[in-house]
Amino acid sequence: MFEKRQKLEKLFRPGSVALIGASNKPGKWGSIILSNLINGGFAGSIYPVNPSESKIQGLEAYQKIADVPEVPDLAVIVVPPSAVPSIIGECVAKGIQAGVVITAGFSEVGRDGEGLQREMVRQAREGGMILVGPNCNGIMSPPERLHVAMPPIFFPPGSMAVVAQSGNVATSIARRVAKNGFGISCFVSSGNEADLHCEDYYEYLSEDPGTKVILSYIEGFRDGRRFFDMARRVTRKKPIVMLKAGTTRVGARAAKSHTAAMAGAELAFEGASRQVGVVRAKNMNDLANIAAGFLEQPLPSGRRVGIVTAGGGWGVLAADACAEAGLHVSDLPDETIEELDMFLPGWWSRSNPVDLVAGLNPDHLGRSLECLLRCPTLDGILLLGIMPALPLKSLAPSAPPEVVEKRLQTMLTAIREVFTGFMGLAHRYQNRLSSRPSYHSPW
Amino acid sequence: MFEKRQKLEKLFRPGSVALIGASNKPGKWGSIILSNLINGGFAGSIYPVNPSESKIQGLEAYQKIADVPEVPDLAVIVVPPSAVPSIIGECVAKGIQAGVVITAGFSEVGRDGEGLQREMVRQAREGGMILVGPNCNGIMSPPERLHVAMPPIFFPPGSMAVVAQSGNVATSIARRVAKNGFGISCFVSSGNEADLHCEDYYEYLSEDPGTKVILSYIEGFRDGRRFFDMARRVTRKKPIVMLKAGTTRVGARAAKSHTAAMAGAELAFEGASRQVGVVRAKNMNDLANIAAGFLEQPLPSGRRVGIVTAGGGWGVLAADACAEAGLHVSDLPDETIEELDMFLPGWWSRSNPVDLVAGLNPDHLGRSLECLLRCPTLDGILLLGIMPALPLKSLAPSAPPEVVEKRLQTMLTAIREVFTGFMGLAHRYQNRLSSRPSYHSPW
Repeated sequence: MFEKRQKLEKLFRPGSVALIGASNKPGKWGSIILSNLINGGFAGSIYPVNPSESKIQGLEAYQKIADVPEVPDLAVIVVPPSAVPSIIGECVAKGIQAGVVITAGFSEVGRDGEGLQREMVRQAREGGMILVGPNCNGIMSPPERLHVAMPPIFFPPGSMAVVAQSGNVATSIARRVAKNGFGISCFVSSGNEADLHCEDYYEYLSEDPGTKVILSYIEGFRDGRRFFDMARRVTRKKPIVMLKAGTTRVGARAAKSHTAAMAGAELAFEGASRQVGVVRAKNMNDLANIAAGFLEQPLPSGRRVGIVTAGGGWGVLAADACAEAGLHVSDLPDETIEELDMFLPGWWSRSNPVDLVAGLNPDHLGRSLECLLRCPTLDGILLLGIMPALPLKSLAPSAPPEVVEKRLQTMLTAIREVFTGFMGLAHRYQNRLSSRPSYHSPW
Repeated sequence: MFEKRQKLEKLFRPGSVALIGASNKPGKWGSIILSNLINGGFAGSIYPVNPSESKIQGLEAYQKIADVPEVPDLAVIVVPPSAVPSIIGECVAKGIQAGVVITAGFSEVGRDGEGLQREMVRQAREGGMILVGPNCNGIMSPPERLHVAMPPIFFPPGSMAVVAQSGNVATSIARRVAKNGFGISCFVSSGNEADLHCEDYYEYLSEDPGTKVILSYIEGFRDGRRFFDMARRVTRKKPIVMLKAGTTRVGARAAKSHTAAMAGAELAFEGASRQVGVVRAKNMNDLANIAAGFLEQPLPSGRRVGIVTAGGGWGVLAADACAEAGLHVSDLPDETIEELDMFLPGWWSRSNPVDLVAGLNPDHLGRSLECLLRCPTLDGILLLGIMPALPLKSLAPSAPPEVVEKRLQTMLTAIREVFTGFMGLAHRYQNRLSSRPSYHSPW
């Protein structure tokens, strides 16, 4: 167990990387991945391996793995599928303990590929080498500036880990995370999972101090029991937010030809996820947004939700969304309504959602929010719209750029102040709202 | 009928506007709406009306409507609710035929408000004046530079109309439309719909040459039969894409206190929408995206979908989404598979979704797309990912700004070229795919 963890450390925090199949030819993955590794700013040694080159992208190249002047912590393999098993043999002979097989053409293409994949895994396991892939997009550890993956995109370092059975979906998720202003601790495209499975990465990440939330895209499992056992253990420490694909018959069929995963029946999966505390997301945006909620917000202690809205329509949509998610938009106790009546104008909704109906008093939003945070019959608050707390004034589209810029800065400052104040309120009441010791969802 | 249309023309394309309740005090709606109207660049005359000011925001102000030197095409009303009926009486006396009542505090607040609202409508109808609202956010006609609404935001002119029973949701939708690169032909926050209902705006927009798609947010109806009869007539000419709220019990309750709308039962609504050809969206992003599809893409002639994907995971998610939407991810005929086999590498999925599995040949994507467009057993194509057709090369995050800028321009040019080519293909095969005469969905 401890030994496996050490190997996973070498995988995600290597001191040196050999890229087997590195290339000088633009448009080959062996070229793109090498330039990603170099451009990403990896601080350790990089050893391109290619039998027919002496220099690749300015680095000294090695004809074979045996020639590399040290034992690299990590081997990244992009050679054609038929050559992969013997390359794994060479890696083992060299003493390499961790590998990423990018190459496709294994179990996902049928019987011949299955044979190759079995042989590759046999070689690796006998030699004590762990493997990511095959048929994967690669891995990234942005805090380590390690980027051995296909997408020519560098994500900012942060505390969200992405573990996905699709490299492209992993990339899409990480892009949404970055767009939301968050960063990535670890990125794994698990591919066919011939050796390491998603649950192995969950286990590693549950102990990784740099990771606070795990975002995962799953098509199916190799070993459902092990998957859910591990998920249960991990969610006691950190939230796993999951997008499950292959939930329909056609989706499951597509998953089979994608990563050879056996997609499970939706109802069984939904039940098991709930039991082990995995939070399901409906789509990629949803996934990134839920993960952001886990990072920034105290956990609610139950299902009863109070809604404060600067506009009625948002309140109606939010009430629908709560009901669909099994949350309760509870009636407010009389004392809370009386408290709100003391400062809100007569036209407010006098019920939950608390609709401020285009009121423009900048204090009303914060005071209403605080009333609901204090309300003993609510477990969590949704706040929709901060317009009433902002300095509203239109600017002609023809206004000079410096005026536009000044207005923009005024608005940004105001938005920042409002949010800082509201987050302060949320955290002040956090103890009351978040009384549970784990990240298990409270229902 | 013709007369009503003329009044609606005065509403959305007025030559002159009176703002009754205009104000010099920043932070009052009478001030914000006037500055929006001025800053928006409205070319006609603007008449602020306020009994206690002689100048408002630099414009000559009038003590009462009777004093205004012409009959304004449109009256916008922001005075307190108790004053609204008599103001409507003055508008009628002046000969004004169209009004927008921004003021809240009518049927949505209970019995007193209901009485006021009835009296307001009686005055207007007897005097032949049409009314938007009350309790609404206002209207905008960006092509006319008319902005008589609360949000201090100007949307670009374009061909999407937004009709919503919530001003804030209307604004959120229009912002998504603008973010997607599209523009607005008309924006209506319908409020309590005391006089004009959503279906009246649909009818007007169905004849508006500047509007190509109608995006609508609905909480409930005043007259369900009239609503669906009108929707059926309109969808024969233009698509209506709708986000329906109040679909749950708590949502419906929230809608009641929002715009006093009676939210209908979800199943009945869903059935009726399908019958009349209204396309349902699941949320605001979905709404803006579907509308964009209607603007830019030929309509599919049936339910059979072909998927081309540059990554397997996207294909699985898309297959799930198609199945959930009642579309068929059909098997490909042998001749299409043979045609694809002729140029795709051995590892492609050999089924629908057509997964190109990280292949980097820039021609494969377009050729695969064309194969599916020609395939006689498909009615529409989904294309996911254009990466294989782009010049992939990473750039160190430390690269100098001019290098980053140059790369960005290269990528944007490449993306533009790829999309122009693919849209050309789609339109070349449009006649085959889009054989139906109306915007009714084909099922």
